[in-house]
Amino acid sequence: MRPQDFIKPQDFKRVFSVQRMAKLIDEFGAIGADPLGGVTRLAFSEEDLRAREKIKYIMTEELSLEASVDPWGNIIGRRSGQLKGAPALITGSHLDSVQNGGKFDGPAGVLGAVEAFRALDSFGIKTDHPLELIVFTAEEPSPFGLSTIGSRGMAGKLKKEHLLGKKNDKGEELLDAIARIGGDPDHLEMGVRGSDKIYAFIEIHIEQMPYLEKERKDIGVVQGIAGIHRLRVTILGEAGHAGTTPMRERKDALVASAHLIRELNSLARSEKEKTVATIGQLSLQPNSVNIVPGKAVLEIEIRSFQLDSISRIKRGLDRALVDVEAEMGVKVIQEITYDLHPNTFSPRIREYLHGACRHLGFSSMDLVSMAGHDANHISNITDSGMIFVPSHKGLSHCPEEWTEPKHLVNGAQVLLRALLQLDQNT
Amino acid sequence: MRPQDFIKPQDFKRVFSVQRMAKLIDEFGAIGADPLGGVTRLAFSEEDLRAREKIKYIMTEELSLEASVDPWGNIIGRRSGQLKGAPALITGSHLDSVQNGGKFDGPAGVLGAVEAFRALDSFGIKTDHPLELIVFTAEEPSPFGLSTIGSRGMAGKLKKEHLLGKKNDKGEELLDAIARIGGDPDHLEMGVRGSDKIYAFIEIHIEQMPYLEKERKDIGVVQGIAGIHRLRVTILGEAGHAGTTPMRERKDALVASAHLIRELNSLARSEKEKTVATIGQLSLQPNSVNIVPGKAVLEIEIRSFQLDSISRIKRGLDRALVDVEAEMGVKVIQEITYDLHPNTFSPRIREYLHGACRHLGFSSMDLVSMAGHDANHISNITDSGMIFVPSHKGLSHCPEEWTEPKHLVNGAQVLLRALLQLDQNT
Repeated sequence: MRPQDFIKPQDFKRVFSVQRMAKLIDEFGAIGADPLGGVTRLAFSEEDLRAREKIKYIMTEELSLEASVDPWGNIIGRRSGQLKGAPALITGSHLDSVQNGGKFDGPAGVLGAVEAFRALDSFGIKTDHPLELIVFTAEEPSPFGLSTIGSRGMAGKLKKEHLLGKKNDKGEELLDAIARIGGDPDHLEMGVRGSDKIYAFIEIHIEQMPYLEKERKDIGVVQGIAGIHRLRVTILGEAGHAGTTPMRERKDALVASAHLIRELNSLARSEKEKTVATIGQLSLQPNSVNIVPGKAVLEIEIRSFQLDSISRIKRGLDRALVDVEAEMGVKVIQEITYDLHPNTFSPRIREYLHGACRHLGFSSMDLVSMAGHDANHISNITDSGMIFVPSHKGLSHCPEEWTEPKHLVNGAQVLLRALLQLDQNT
Repeated sequence: MRPQDFIKPQDFKRVFSVQRMAKLIDEFGAIGADPLGGVTRLAFSEEDLRAREKIKYIMTEELSLEASVDPWGNIIGRRSGQLKGAPALITGSHLDSVQNGGKFDGPAGVLGAVEAFRALDSFGIKTDHPLELIVFTAEEPSPFGLSTIGSRGMAGKLKKEHLLGKKNDKGEELLDAIARIGGDPDHLEMGVRGSDKIYAFIEIHIEQMPYLEKERKDIGVVQGIAGIHRLRVTILGEAGHAGTTPMRERKDALVASAHLIRELNSLARSEKEKTVATIGQLSLQPNSVNIVPGKAVLEIEIRSFQLDSISRIKRGLDRALVDVEAEMGVKVIQEITYDLHPNTFSPRIREYLHGACRHLGFSSMDLVSMAGHDANHISNITDSGMIFVPSHKGLSHCPEEWTEPKHLVNGAQVLLRALLQLDQNT
C-alpha cells in the first residue's frame, strides 16, 4: 500500500497550515498593493512579472516541482508521476488581477494548490499520474483587450491570428508581451494540449457570491459556468448647445440611454436569481457640461446559466431599442462583442468533489459560477471541475474582497483529496 | 449737419456687402478648421492666436482703428470720437470656439462689427463718442476650466485670485497664458473698466435657437439672458463583479443615475418652453464592462429666464435624490458648481434696437438668450443689449452651425444704426 492509503482526515488537519496560507496570501497581496487598499496586478505588468517570479521560486525551491513556461506564457510546475506516459492531473488558476481588485481572485487557486502540493511532499506521496500546478496567463481583461489568454490558448480556442495587432496603450504588441513573460509566440500551437495529455483539471476559486456564507457551507461544488453575452449599443442622437436647444427638439443620447439602463435592469430582475445584466461602461460624446450628449456607447453584459434567460433579456432589450428609436428620434446600432454559452462541468469530477467534502467532514453545496474562469476553457479538453470557497459578502474585483485563510485551506484539502482519488481512479 | 444725418436705409444696403461678409466668415472659419468640418479654435491655442493676429491686422490696416491688448488679453480696436472725454460706445464678441464647434458663434459679433465699422469709414462718419470693437478673451469654456474670462475681467467680476493655480492639461498657468497672448497678468485690475468710461455695449450673436427661422424674422432683440445653475451630483454605490453580484444585492451607480437622468428630463419638460435641463457629462468608476458601476459623477445644468423655474426643478431633483438613496441604497452628494441668475438687458438699448429694425425695414422679435454671452457680464458696468441673427435649425457648438451671411449683414446694419442713434442720443 502507498502512503496515501494511510492518510486520514485528521492527518490533513495536521499537515495543512492556516497560518502558512495566510502568510502566503499576504505576500502575494503585497505585490501590486494599492496605497488605499486593493491590488493592481494587471497581466504582463511589472507587478505580474514579480508575482510570476515568486511562484516559480516556490515551485522549484519549496515544492518538488519542475517549472517551465509554455508558449502561451502559462507557468507549469510539474511533479512527476510513477506511471510512465500517464496523462497529467492538473490544477491551478491565475495571478493577474483587475485594476484595484482583491488579493484572492486567482491567487486562491494558485496558493491553495501550493498548500496541497506542500502536503503531498509532507506525506511523501508519489502519485501514478504526474501532477501540474498551472498559473494561467492573463485571466482577467488584460491591457491588450483579451482575457483568459493562457487557458484559451492551451485549449486550442485562441489562435495566433486572434492576437495579431492587439496592442496595449503603450503600443506594445501582445505577441511581444507574451515573449517578454517567457512565452514563445512563434510556436503557440505547441502550447495547445490534447485531451490525451491531461487526465482532469480542478481549480479552486473564491465564490465571488454570497451564497456559501449565507448558507454557512464550507465548500461549493461548481455545476457549471454561466454564459456571457456582451453587446455594444451605440446611440446616435444630436449634440447641441445645452442652453439653446429646446427640450422638445432634443435627441439626447444620455436620456435615451437612461431608458435602456432601467429597462435592462428590470428585465434581469424579472429572471431567476442566477441571471444578471449590467452596463458597466458608458461613454458620452462630446461629454461636456454645456452640450447635449450627441452619442452614447453602452457596453452591455448579460450572464446566465440558462440560455433561454439570456435570449429573453435580449428580446426585451430589442423591444426597448425599437421604442427608444421611435420615441426619442435617436438611431441605435447594436453589435455582439462576446458570446460564450453556459457550460456544465463534468458530473464525475463534481461527484469526486462532493465525496472529498464528505470524507473530510466539510459541508458542501452545488453552485453555479456567474464569472468566467480558466476552468471554463480547460473543460474543452478534459474533465474539469471547480471548488468554490466562501467570499465575505460575495464582494470581488474590489479591495474589500475577502476569504478566510481557513476556508481556503479547506478548499486545498478538498483539492488534494479529489486529486488523490482521481489518481487512483477510485 | 453731420454725414450720418444724410444716411438713408438704401445707403446702408449699398455700402454693406454680403459677399465681403461671407468671405470674412470663411477666412476666419479656415483658422482651426477640422478635417471633417467644424472649427476648433480653443482659447489661448495656436489657432486662437492666429485669429487674434488677423483681427488686429484688419483693425489697423483695413479700418481706422487703433488696436491694443488690455491686461486681460482683450483686443480693443478704438475709433476716436470728437467729443473730448466722452465714454466709449462698444461692440464686439469673441473669436475662440469650442472643440469641433461652428464658425459663427463669436465671430458673428466680431466680423459683423468689422462690416459696420467699414461702413462708418465709407460714409466718412465721425462720431461724438469713441467707438470700440472688442474681441473678448476666452468666452467659451477654456482649457483652463474658465469661460468668459475677458468680459468678466473687464467687468471686475474676476480677480487674480480666481485665476491663480488654474492650469491647462499641459501644465501651463492661466496667468502665463494671458501674458502669452499679450495681456498683463500683473496688472489685471488696470483692465477693469468703470461705467464712466463706457456709454453702452451692443453685441451681435447668432441666435443658437430656431425661433427666428421658424417665425421668419430678420432680427432678435434680446430681452435678457437665462440664469445658469450647475450641480455636480456624485452617486456612491458599490462596485462589484458583473457576473457574481446578484441583481437584488447591487448598488449600481449607473442604474441610480438613469433614474435621475429621466427625472430631470421630465422636470424640465414640464416647465415652460424657455427652460432646459441637461446632463452633458457623466463619468463612471471603474467603467469596465464586467464590473457593476460603483460611482457615477453627473454634471447637471439647469437654465431658465425664470428663477422660479430653476428653483422648481431643483426641488424636484432633491426629491428624486432622496428617492434614489432610499430605493437603491446608494449615497448621493450634491454640490453647486456654478450659479448665475437670469439677467435682463437695458430697456433703453432694446428700444434702440427695435427702432433700428423699423428704420431699416427689418422684422424683429423679442427673444431670451439661453446661452451665456460676454454681454451678460458687460451689462454689469454699462447699458447693454444683444442683436440675434437667425441660426439654421438653431444648431450651434457643432459643425452644422450656420447663419446666412445676408442675415449677419442685417445684424451689422442694425448695430450701426443703433450705435449712431446712441451716439447722438436721439
